[in-house]
Amino acid sequence: MPQTSEPLNPNLKDDINASFAKLVLMRTIGAKLVRVEPGEVDVALPFRDDLTQQLGYMAAAVVSAILDVACGYAAMSLAPSGTTILTVEFKVNLLAPALGERFVARGHVIRSGRTVSVCGGDVAALNANEEKPIATMLATMMTVKE
Amino acid sequence: MPQTSEPLNPNLKDDINASFAKLVLMRTIGAKLVRVEPGEVDVALPFRDDLTQQLGYMAAAVVSAILDVACGYAAMSLAPSGTTILTVEFKVNLLAPALGERFVARGHVIRSGRTVSVCGGDVAALNANEEKPIATMLATMMTVKE
Amino acid sequence: MPQTSEPLNPNLKDDINASFAKLVLMRTIGAKLVRVEPGEVDVALPFRDDLTQQLGYMAAAVVSAILDVACGYAAMSLAPSGTTILTVEFKVNLLAPALGERFVARGHVIRSGRTVSVCGGDVAALNANEEKPIATMLATMMTVKE
Amino acid sequence: MPQTSEPLNPNLKDDINASFAKLVLMRTIGAKLVRVEPGEVDVALPFRDDLTQQLGYMAAAVVSAILDVACGYAAMSLAPSGTTILTVEFKVNLLAPALGERFVARGHVIRSGRTVSVCGGDVAALNANEEKPIATMLATMMTVKE
Repeated sequence: MPQTSEPLNPNLKDDINASFAKLVLMRTIGAKLVRVEPGEVDVALPFRDDLTQQLGYMAAAVVSAILDVACGYAAMSLAPSGTTILTVEFKVNLLAPALGERFVARGHVIRSGRTVSVCGGDVAALNANEEKPIATMLATMMTVKE
Repeated sequence: MPQTSEPLNPNLKDDINASFAKLVLMRTIGAKLVRVEPGEVDVALPFRDDLTQQLGYMAAAVVSAILDVACGYAAMSLAPSGTTILTVEFKVNLLAPALGERFVARGHVIRSGRTVSVCGGDVAALNANEEKPIATMLATMMTVKE
Repeated sequence: MPQTSEPLNPNLKDDINASFAKLVLMRTIGAKLVRVEPGEVDVALPFRDDLTQQLGYMAAAVVSAILDVACGYAAMSLAPSGTTILTVEFKVNLLAPALGERFVARGHVIRSGRTVSVCGGDVAALNANEEKPIATMLATMMTVKE
Repeated sequence: MPQTSEPLNPNLKDDINASFAKLVLMRTIGAKLVRVEPGEVDVALPFRDDLTQQLGYMAAAVVSAILDVACGYAAMSLAPSGTTILTVEFKVNLLAPALGERFVARGHVIRSGRTVSVCGGDVAALNANEEKPIATMLATMMTVKE
């Protein structure tokens, strides 16, 4: 059950959008921040041939990339202003081939702490009429002064 | 202690090089396979501005990308010919900012199984005269018929 | 979102109860199987002084023990009869001190596969009038012939 | 490669022995602290029927218990005096059935930080003349004032 307590940062959407704009890797792979709510952040990524592995699926690390960012900003959405988030560690399970027109990583906060937060995330592959889970993450994030 | 038992595939270097050449993401980010031994595989990556996060370090997912590949091919180096490796899951701990001229991910097999293998990997950041550990991975890989 | 597809084993409740009865460790620590549904299994444990760590909380490994079992039987609840489940790996995040009168680990299946299943689990500490999340697990299970 | 830098606590052996004596669970399962060096700690456990799972092996959680403690004290061995260690999270891969006369968990520090440390650990099953790896852990520990 995601933790969606009151945010400590009144400008969280602006702050997270501004921070996301500095994530060069996200621009490089074509990912977009598509939803920011207190404790929940979604990142979307269209399929791209240049990010695939040997079987033509999106590479595990690309799936991890959008999960990591969705989880990190979910943590940041409950942190005080003037702080940023560093990834301490994450674990990803790949559930199905990363094939689809588009992928959405949905990160949520499981526990928001002053220093350490725990987040979960799921990635779905989206096609015309269906949505399929392809990966899940459990991550530990650290809040640091910016 | 890495497991470096006798390889089941006499052409492992050729097979792994051929497989790596099909990893489009590795070409996209500029990673190279720099060492293939039974049970041990290294992947190198030069620093690139377009793969960074908000503080200018290489993004966690990029570090994970080369670790995942080094671990996967370490597993493949002990698997029979005619098989390929899928990542079941991995966990990465980030140890220090991913700053350096070049990064080397070193994957090794901890346990080689018929279906499931367990691998470990470490990434070092390399500068002129020093090498610094920046990340470590523990991963579960699955061997499937090609 | 838990996967609660149709069970392949018509006797799943009996089979899982019979298997649980053979888990000597669960008897040793006083854990009980309290709910078995397709894709979801709960295990309860009363607080016990002899299972604590240096600060008087239930030890992380005890919390992991009931999570591991809840996740394993959640996987088994969707597997064919005549099979059993082995834990390949798990990751646990501790969210809060394990203090309470009673603990309930709730395991669910995230992806049920023929060989490999992925499960999630959460532990709550229960007191008179409240329930508090104290740990979460993401686990990989393997189905093997009994 | 374990990090075995100079300890910050001159009484680390006494402090860790005193702390271990308060780990009630370790006494309950019969585990002993058998080696304490800066950055490296070993915990041993004889086989016990009352700690097994459905196939007669030591349960995954028992193996995790001694790994968690070995990793935690490895972290504590490099922390300042007056602090204690809490487990943030760990991941365990089970490599082989936990069968043997005795088990030894060997924890080492991968990165020692002021707040967060990363540790690795391995468990071997010991019989008369052989030693076999059965599990490996990657863990995140937090240093807190006692």
